[in-house]
Amino acid sequence: MKIAVDAMGGDHAPKEIVHGIMQAAENFTDTEFILYGNEAEINKYLTKTDRISVIHTNEKIEAEDEPVRAVRRKKTASMVMMAQSVKDGDTHACISAGNTGALMAAGLFVVGRIKGIERPALAPTLPTLDGEGFIMLDLGANADAKPEHILQNAIMGSIYAEKVRVIAKPKVALLNIGTEANKGNELTKKAYDLLDKADIHFIGNIEARDLLEGQADVVVTDGFTGNVVLKAIEGTASAIFSMLKGTLTSSLKNKIAAGLIKSDLMQLKDKLDYTEYGGACLFGLDAPVIKAHGSSNANAIYHAVRQAREMVIHDVSGKIKTAVENK
Amino acid sequence: MKIAVDAMGGDHAPKEIVHGIMQAAENFTDTEFILYGNEAEINKYLTKTDRISVIHTNEKIEAEDEPVRAVRRKKTASMVMMAQSVKDGDTHACISAGNTGALMAAGLFVVGRIKGIERPALAPTLPTLDGEGFIMLDLGANADAKPEHILQNAIMGSIYAEKVRVIAKPKVALLNIGTEANKGNELTKKAYDLLDKADIHFIGNIEARDLLEGQADVVVTDGFTGNVVLKAIEGTASAIFSMLKGTLTSSLKNKIAAGLIKSDLMQLKDKLDYTEYGGACLFGLDAPVIKAHGSSNANAIYHAVRQAREMVIHDVSGKIKTAVENK
Repeated sequence: MKIAVDAMGGDHAPKEIVHGIMQAAENFTDTEFILYGNEAEINKYLTKTDRISVIHTNEKIEAEDEPVRAVRRKKTASMVMMAQSVKDGDTHACISAGNTGALMAAGLFVVGRIKGIERPALAPTLPTLDGEGFIMLDLGANADAKPEHILQNAIMGSIYAEKVRVIAKPKVALLNIGTEANKGNELTKKAYDLLDKADIHFIGNIEARDLLEGQADVVVTDGFTGNVVLKAIEGTASAIFSMLKGTLTSSLKNKIAAGLIKSDLMQLKDKLDYTEYGGACLFGLDAPVIKAHGSSNANAIYHAVRQAREMVIHDVSGKIKTAVENK
Repeated sequence: MKIAVDAMGGDHAPKEIVHGIMQAAENFTDTEFILYGNEAEINKYLTKTDRISVIHTNEKIEAEDEPVRAVRRKKTASMVMMAQSVKDGDTHACISAGNTGALMAAGLFVVGRIKGIERPALAPTLPTLDGEGFIMLDLGANADAKPEHILQNAIMGSIYAEKVRVIAKPKVALLNIGTEANKGNELTKKAYDLLDKADIHFIGNIEARDLLEGQADVVVTDGFTGNVVLKAIEGTASAIFSMLKGTLTSSLKNKIAAGLIKSDLMQLKDKLDYTEYGGACLFGLDAPVIKAHGSSNANAIYHAVRQAREMVIHDVSGKIKTAVENK
């Protein structure tokens, strides 16, 4: 298997990207990697080259670039070349920690979408208290969704949960403002009816306050709501941990207590760290495209590779294609 | 001033409601209270009757009641009688910790809405790290909002922040999926343009991850998104505190640490407890209607009274009416 990697995307590129890929190459001995980016920069960190090759390019997409325009104009950007290699069949999947909008555009315009999927969806695995996690889609690829898009999200998420996460009958829930069937806005009311009739294990509505409890394996919503909820969860967790840090250093007594519980608290924080669960998948494209978190370290990149491999091995894109055709 | 109170609404009614009102009567010596509900039940807890009277009724609205139907059929329910007393001019404002949907229906059909306000909005004050808090609207009264409704939310929130919270030039932000002006879905893009031209201090978009940082005094959104975000914040905070509790009791060492920091941790938890900030206001009605949290204790009811008084003293409803007429 061959995986294409944008070595220049993300806050800690290329260093952490290269380190993560070296770790992955060591562990997944059936997999080859092609790194796209500035060769001199990459070679500063690339100390093992077994099954890792580099294709040099000076151009890259910046975090501030306007996504669609950047993908159309910067034909030799590391991210665009990476996507092109998947399109050309030279590689089986690709990974980038760069500009999210640009990666969605590269997925859509370069890799290409599955016929019948109207809008690709961005789907990370979010943490739950039991450590199992759930996938949520869409997280921002499609801000103005129609009920049919939410149904397609449910089908794509269900296939991923079954094949990659090996959950026999994945529970699919609709994010809504109440648990009763008649709750919601126009969009969720119509989506509920479609989901209820679909060939998935639909368990009904879920409220945002219960997301972390792990009641569902797949949670579907429109891209606007999904994005806002993800950021609300992130922001609240980060605010509480920063307050906690303040409390634990506010007095000598508290510092002593902090010393006693520090390692356990770090574990608790890690439990909520969704970079541990891999990157976000872009579903609905002809091949797996993985968006690693912008602040990815080597470990996050390693997990993104693990995820990309599972998607290729289980042919998630092909199965989504078949499911959409047979609808 | 006279305030009508639904003594039978909420998880701890009538006990905590009565206790909260006795506390308020003692503190606000210019205010009279009328409690609506089961007199025998109320009298179990009512030990001081200075400026507190009771109007007996056996009927009440249950948490499971279908809101609109319940308000229309249960004419002598404590909540409906409370709203009717405001409508009749016998009282100046009303407070209930009961069924949120029913209180919105009672506000709309009994108290009545301000001419020109298309949809009333539900607005609690949410906590921020600096302890100042911000008001967010709408939190669920209007799940399918139009851009004009979001503009009205901004005007109503601005007036409240200026008059009741005494903020000279309240900063108004639009909840969105990016900070740039062109971000969002159809609704937020159109709302942005309206807000940008309005006679308010509009500071642009705010992302959900920055809500608790206190950058804005008023955050506007549609009722669906607002409700989901509120519950995501609540759910994340509650999940983290429950994990924290687990960690602090998991070993003898951790229990010792817990003993040292317990009181400081409780303070931290209180900081995020939005019942401290009073109830949620229903804006756009002819008179102040306050929704106290369903799990309100005496202290929360006391704060809801404080809030209702401020709204009456500063004539928030009248000022919203004038602002809408002069648009």
